[in-house]
Amino acid sequence: MDQGLKTADNEREHGGLIVREHDPLNLESPFNALDGIITPNSQFFVRSHFSIPNIDVPGWQLSCGGHVARDIVISYEELVKLPSRTLTSTMECAGNGRVFLTPKADGVQWERGGIGTAEWTGVSLSVLLEKAGLKAGALEVVLSGADEGELIEPPKTPGRIRFSRSLPLSKALSDEVILAFLMNGEPLGSQHGFPVRAIVPGWYGMASVKWLEQIEVVDQPFQGYWQTAEYSQWKRLAGEPVSAPVAEMQTKSQIARPGRNERITPGTRYRIFGAAWSGEANIAQVDVSTDGGKRWSAAHLLGEQLPFTWRLWEFEWQVPSKPGRYELMSRATDDSGTIQPSKHSPDHNAYMIHHTLPLDIEVR
Amino acid sequence: MDQGLKTADNEREHGGLIVREHDPLNLESPFNALDGIITPNSQFFVRSHFSIPNIDVPGWQLSCGGHVARDIVISYEELVKLPSRTLTSTMECAGNGRVFLTPKADGVQWERGGIGTAEWTGVSLSVLLEKAGLKAGALEVVLSGADEGELIEPPKTPGRIRFSRSLPLSKALSDEVILAFLMNGEPLGSQHGFPVRAIVPGWYGMASVKWLEQIEVVDQPFQGYWQTAEYSQWKRLAGEPVSAPVAEMQTKSQIARPGRNERITPGTRYRIFGAAWSGEANIAQVDVSTDGGKRWSAAHLLGEQLPFTWRLWEFEWQVPSKPGRYELMSRATDDSGTIQPSKHSPDHNAYMIHHTLPLDIEVR
Repeated sequence: MDQGLKTADNEREHGGLIVREHDPLNLESPFNALDGIITPNSQFFVRSHFSIPNIDVPGWQLSCGGHVARDIVISYEELVKLPSRTLTSTMECAGNGRVFLTPKADGVQWERGGIGTAEWTGVSLSVLLEKAGLKAGALEVVLSGADEGELIEPPKTPGRIRFSRSLPLSKALSDEVILAFLMNGEPLGSQHGFPVRAIVPGWYGMASVKWLEQIEVVDQPFQGYWQTAEYSQWKRLAGEPVSAPVAEMQTKSQIARPGRNERITPGTRYRIFGAAWSGEANIAQVDVSTDGGKRWSAAHLLGEQLPFTWRLWEFEWQVPSKPGRYELMSRATDDSGTIQPSKHSPDHNAYMIHHTLPLDIEVR
Repeated sequence: MDQGLKTADNEREHGGLIVREHDPLNLESPFNALDGIITPNSQFFVRSHFSIPNIDVPGWQLSCGGHVARDIVISYEELVKLPSRTLTSTMECAGNGRVFLTPKADGVQWERGGIGTAEWTGVSLSVLLEKAGLKAGALEVVLSGADEGELIEPPKTPGRIRFSRSLPLSKALSDEVILAFLMNGEPLGSQHGFPVRAIVPGWYGMASVKWLEQIEVVDQPFQGYWQTAEYSQWKRLAGEPVSAPVAEMQTKSQIARPGRNERITPGTRYRIFGAAWSGEANIAQVDVSTDGGKRWSAAHLLGEQLPFTWRLWEFEWQVPSKPGRYELMSRATDDSGTIQPSKHSPDHNAYMIHHTLPLDIEVR
């Protein structure tokens, strides 16, 4: 294993990405530049909570223990020799769109670019779990990364902690959850979890733990910081709110072009272009409004639906000959019948922001 | 049932109590006035999260449902006819002592008076649970009060919510957990949960749900607002912090007299006086230091230990003939060997504040 791998993209500039935060590093993708299903690695958003861990392949190992028949420790070389699979998956940051919340919410002020799609190659988590052997009563699988530190702004961390998230057993055992070591055919960049990260298709990005170093099977619901103090939502149980981890991505669409405040020539035809996605369902329909949500028309869905992957769409707009400001909106419907809502739910805290957003453009 | 009960103490002044907050009503007991095991009702601290509910006895009923064989609804008249028991129990607010935290923590700035002891009369929760019949898989019992509202300061509530807390089945079925309707022999005051509140001996006050209206047996760990967003702590599971509800009171002692900045005559004998308690253990020892914690001497424990009740103690201090400022401290040890710590644990957030506190006094 070549140590050179490790620094493969360390020297790259953040060119093409928008810096939301330098330390920890949070970079937003230019959603306006959307051009096909796959987001190039150089344009893929980066979400980190602490400093990027400096991991070399010879020193890396992954342990799998807890409520299992036998503890396992596996090296990078051993991992990549296991049967692997390649899948395409869209990953959205749970806070994508936070800047559009009113009142303003704390946290990274993502606009539309906390999302991207890549082709990931890795070993199904279920392969390792089968090797370890689940004990009766196994309930969740906790994934922990090597990234760690202390947050002193509320919600404060209890001292130094690392990043950990759990998956229910049903999701953890589904073949699509992989321990990925390639991203669009290249070794993971250091910002993307080198050498190995989890990919949890259909779930918001926080579940796809980067710099993975430990897998722990537990027999109790895991109540770690990153699914209680942060990345938590309120679910209703007989009408009463109960705290639950943020999990599946919600049905959503975004307009990539035109961009905000773009000027469009009156009387022309303009191709409105964007993407739509839903966590574990498929996109059935996208509608577009050019009058701020009064009237809606069906957009044209492009290509084929890949599982866990956004669907690109377009809408040929007959631009009015009358100059003025117009409010464009898109609205996705998935094949379970869920429609993108018009308002943010307070039960989602400052996450899962998927309501329809007006895009103000100028025709003149 | 006389409706007159309802307003029994409504007209009373807050005389004798220190107002920490008017709306919602939060009143602190004058701990300095400690005088015997029982805190008079008029001096008992009040902790409320919303407006005091206006409940009349004819309109009140208590439901018990969820994971039970049969749903039950019981009136006040039916409840008070069930076999009842009377027990003495010390109740400390989980935020008692918060004003002494550095850095300053948000929340009601309790000093030493968020604590009191009363004789409570009521029906064991287990009596109702037996009537309802627990189904297999029953795990926790959720108690809900009639107090409700919306908090807009972080941690924000998800809209209007009511106050709910859960107990593990083991605690819920212990006979000492009662549905109380008398406090020191009088009907509960409206601020104390009229007509019926839970009393959960050994636990911080938030578990003793006031204005009780619903009992719900659940088969999953309850993740309500009042044990996740608030009144939660970090417990260590193999060293990793996991969120858990604040529960048992911690081993603690407080000095009632002298008071802060009290002047004491040099060369005299002074009786330092206070109380010590521990959630589900008994107090084994109290030590006192008059030099800021350098040297400790055993205090004298007064009376007998009652279960779940604070122990009063005294220490005869030979006041130095040399005038100056002295730092008094007390430190409790319980019969499980737990010693009151010298520092606040960050794992306890802004709750469970039980470290030893220096009390500055002047000898001259």
